[in-house]
Amino acid sequence: MYRTHTCGELRIENLGEKVTLSGWIQTIRNLGGMTFVALRDRYGITQLVFDENTPEQIKNQVEELGREFVIKIIGNVVERSSKNPKMPTGDVEIIAEHLTVLSKSEIPPFTIENETDGGDEIRMKYRYLDLRRNPVRENLELRHRMGQEIRKYLDGEKFMEIETPYLIKSTPEGARDFIVPSRMNPGEFYALPQSPQTFKQLLMVSGFDKYFQIVKCFRDEDLRADRQPEFTQIDCEMSFVDQEDVLNTFEGLAKYLFLEVKGAKFEESFPRITYDDAMNYYGSDKPDLRFGMKFSEITEIAQGKGFKVFDSVEYIGGIVANGCAEYSRKKVDELTAFVQKPQVGAKGLVYVKYNQDGTFKSSVDKFFSPDNLKSWADFMNAKPGDLLLILAGNKNDTQNALNVLRLEMGDRLGLRDKNKFAPCWVVDFPLLEWVDEEKRFFAKHHPFTSPKTEDIALFDSDPAKMHANAYDFVINGVEIGGGSIRIFNAELQQKMFNALGISTEEAEEKFGFLLDAFRFGAPPHGGIAFGFDRWCSVFGGSESIRDYIAFPKNNSGRDVMIDSPSVVDEKQLKELTLKVIK
Amino acid sequence: MYRTHTCGELRIENLGEKVTLSGWIQTIRNLGGMTFVALRDRYGITQLVFDENTPEQIKNQVEELGREFVIKIIGNVVERSSKNPKMPTGDVEIIAEHLTVLSKSEIPPFTIENETDGGDEIRMKYRYLDLRRNPVRENLELRHRMGQEIRKYLDGEKFMEIETPYLIKSTPEGARDFIVPSRMNPGEFYALPQSPQTFKQLLMVSGFDKYFQIVKCFRDEDLRADRQPEFTQIDCEMSFVDQEDVLNTFEGLAKYLFLEVKGAKFEESFPRITYDDAMNYYGSDKPDLRFGMKFSEITEIAQGKGFKVFDSVEYIGGIVANGCAEYSRKKVDELTAFVQKPQVGAKGLVYVKYNQDGTFKSSVDKFFSPDNLKSWADFMNAKPGDLLLILAGNKNDTQNALNVLRLEMGDRLGLRDKNKFAPCWVVDFPLLEWVDEEKRFFAKHHPFTSPKTEDIALFDSDPAKMHANAYDFVINGVEIGGGSIRIFNAELQQKMFNALGISTEEAEEKFGFLLDAFRFGAPPHGGIAFGFDRWCSVFGGSESIRDYIAFPKNNSGRDVMIDSPSVVDEKQLKELTLKVIK
Repeated sequence: MYRTHTCGELRIENLGEKVTLSGWIQTIRNLGGMTFVALRDRYGITQLVFDENTPEQIKNQVEELGREFVIKIIGNVVERSSKNPKMPTGDVEIIAEHLTVLSKSEIPPFTIENETDGGDEIRMKYRYLDLRRNPVRENLELRHRMGQEIRKYLDGEKFMEIETPYLIKSTPEGARDFIVPSRMNPGEFYALPQSPQTFKQLLMVSGFDKYFQIVKCFRDEDLRADRQPEFTQIDCEMSFVDQEDVLNTFEGLAKYLFLEVKGAKFEESFPRITYDDAMNYYGSDKPDLRFGMKFSEITEIAQGKGFKVFDSVEYIGGIVANGCAEYSRKKVDELTAFVQKPQVGAKGLVYVKYNQDGTFKSSVDKFFSPDNLKSWADFMNAKPGDLLLILAGNKNDTQNALNVLRLEMGDRLGLRDKNKFAPCWVVDFPLLEWVDEEKRFFAKHHPFTSPKTEDIALFDSDPAKMHANAYDFVINGVEIGGGSIRIFNAELQQKMFNALGISTEEAEEKFGFLLDAFRFGAPPHGGIAFGFDRWCSVFGGSESIRDYIAFPKNNSGRDVMIDSPSVVDEKQLKELTLKVIK
Repeated sequence: MYRTHTCGELRIENLGEKVTLSGWIQTIRNLGGMTFVALRDRYGITQLVFDENTPEQIKNQVEELGREFVIKIIGNVVERSSKNPKMPTGDVEIIAEHLTVLSKSEIPPFTIENETDGGDEIRMKYRYLDLRRNPVRENLELRHRMGQEIRKYLDGEKFMEIETPYLIKSTPEGARDFIVPSRMNPGEFYALPQSPQTFKQLLMVSGFDKYFQIVKCFRDEDLRADRQPEFTQIDCEMSFVDQEDVLNTFEGLAKYLFLEVKGAKFEESFPRITYDDAMNYYGSDKPDLRFGMKFSEITEIAQGKGFKVFDSVEYIGGIVANGCAEYSRKKVDELTAFVQKPQVGAKGLVYVKYNQDGTFKSSVDKFFSPDNLKSWADFMNAKPGDLLLILAGNKNDTQNALNVLRLEMGDRLGLRDKNKFAPCWVVDFPLLEWVDEEKRFFAKHHPFTSPKTEDIALFDSDPAKMHANAYDFVINGVEIGGGSIRIFNAELQQKMFNALGISTEEAEEKFGFLLDAFRFGAPPHGGIAFGFDRWCSVFGGSESIRDYIAFPKNNSGRDVMIDSPSVVDEKQLKELTLKVIK
């Protein structure tokens, strides 16, 4: 037997017991006549002590020990003379009678501590050692807890978890598929699912009524810091529902998770913001509502005063940074440089300091009187002591830049506390999105997304104006999930395909089996899919989903630990009737 | 709003309520002045009634309805004059005030009934319609319940569910991998996991202590009825355990599932049978213990009596079919023909009828006296009225044939009731298996499986005799899972590789990252993996795992519903630097 207790379990109540523990050596401290060894496992750390009474043989063994050795110890639980109140086991220590080295360890390439000296690359290569560190393990514990609680909640709401296939069909719509050659069907390929979208809709046609799945999805996209070629989705679909039913159901899930996992209780309904308002007030369809600093558009009141930069533009808008009127020249210059960075893209920044004494100081004093500036300040709900930051230009770009500036100011003012949570729904997304390069509309969400009933007439007159029964779930400025009510009527579907420039033949080829299914009695249905990795990272307070994935890939899609992808045998390719072209 | 209640919900207590229901039309019965419509959803069926009081407009609508139409109805709950005690909603029916057709349906290609007229092929093509049938839906409900309960149990036992990657590295050992070309790393490939074996061992090295995952696995094998290219495993691993700990933990899981899912309570420990005993008594490493009929070997007492067929063979053994002494000549001939089928492979069958009056009648009366036959009967624990069925030949083939005969007799005697469950553990598997074609040993379970400590010395003298700390979990003759205690010591691992004829370089190339990991303090560990599809099918009483998979593939690995695999664009292949060779 390797243990009677874990390393996180012993308490003062266990005094005098003979116990067996196994674990890794976290530290060895040799204080002259006494040696203290911290023995670690997933559950905690227990102190072992070796002193002048320790048998010679064990003393010799202890001298050979090193960090990360795996040992088994049999000994007695005694009270510590100097207790450590920070450790759950800190009242006791073990006097060893017997020690077995189960596995030796070479010196790890980085320290296995909460704060490590290892860089990203080496920690990825030795991911199995990085996973030994508390913060990394805790991330995966959070993920485990989330997964179990999500299932408990949805099961309680009568959702059925149904596995959909991984070897499916490649569809040329959307992102790039990973494909899988079929040996049994030479020259043919499966594709790995980008999402189980069509299958969950088929399950609704099958009458499953409420479906969910926590499922891996795959996208062969060029990777960014927050993208992985394989990621996990909480995929859900319901029948006989409208948008309100879906939002209420999953707001229930989110509140349950906030409470069970984060101990955060939300009594009120989550705010619902239309897409148009989100863009106008926050310049983003995923607004961070942990703080205000809404945009005010002052185009009307700021134009016509002779300031050319303003007079020629589509949009003038700004935000109010409370209490920042005292900002030094240097700080304001920093902000100007910030908004002028290519990735923000503003031409310049206009500031107005609303001083505590009621006077104004701005970068456009030449063009605007104090009364003018006062009228801006009033319109923007600024108070003495506040700083107005104003950008001008075409509407889209300027709102985008203001969004970045707002988030930057939120950071500078400490308004983006990762332990505070501000969830919201963004609703009424546009149905279609014009893509200039392709000279056609694309579905903003999905070609099966239902337009708002009242907008259907616009298909013929002004499709760009149409809104959809589509919604996103956002926490702290991060899109956690998105979904829609689906079209389940063949005529409406045809109108949608027309708008997307998809011919009947093309639709049949791409989505034939789903259209077929709709001919046999499709229920009204809708759903949502959440990014599980991302939800975990937001709950954990991290910006990177990688921290919440046991074995992530790097930005080239490589797993540097197992050295994958890799070349395969010619023989294997031949069986698949494939050849690599150099 | 589409519904106030589901179609399985209304009871006599709801009399007089105005309700809204939505669902599919199961049947329409027109009885002159009255029309009864059975409205179905996942939860049940509710009867709608239309009679002379029904408004004309609704009557006209009802005439247009057909099977599988999706409708919404608003109406009043009334008491049925002729109640149906077989239906939970059988006390009530709905008088409709308002009817909306939500979706029409074409006539389905087969009837959506418990017993359908559709053949396998058409039901696979229209799987979404087949899934509407109660027995198919109930299979997936069972699977859902199993999944939730497995997680609940393992979470309660402190197992952590950790997702391992799907895009991993191809290893030439074992079955064929499905491979996935990497666009970002031209000419290189990922492989889909045949199991997360190496990753779960890495997680043990990481100190996760108890891991599980319900996870898809992939094998590119030629398919049989009970094989799918993608299948689901309940994958588990534990640290600081020996075989006894693993068996006890997962016997706990199995007992919990038996109780929660099947209502079957097992007080006693599951039988544990050594591999050798299983082969000697049942001719199978997955014995069906719902019935006895153990093999008796009578080689010694049956040889040397002048019957050449017996005298020249390695093995003579038989089974006792209780109460079958009355079998007619025809029945015995049938059994003889059965064992002579090529897939059973016996040369002939010797029978001995132990008549009620204590006399004997056998096919070998010429060679054996009644006393001889009596000695067999006594040795085999037969009673008057029993039939002895005896095969002879080389040991392996004969035991295999006896196994098939035993199962056949079990079927004929009704001893294999699918509602009775006989679980067992098969333990002490051989470590190695000699493969003649390759002229080398292969690991019976896995190259990391630990031999029995007492057998380690045999590495140098007689490796074929070594036994492993490996075990299978079997229910009703079906292998539900298997696992082992792993090697975690580099020297022992080297001995194992030597025995398998794997050089140090080869081991490094194939398993390098795992061997690397073992250099940094590996804990003793072991685990098990269960076939989730198969466990569901055994609990559900079916022989086919397909019935428990929402969207299975056929024997050519095709999904005939979505028509996959399929050809892909040349452009897509070019991006992957691939060419199909005709």
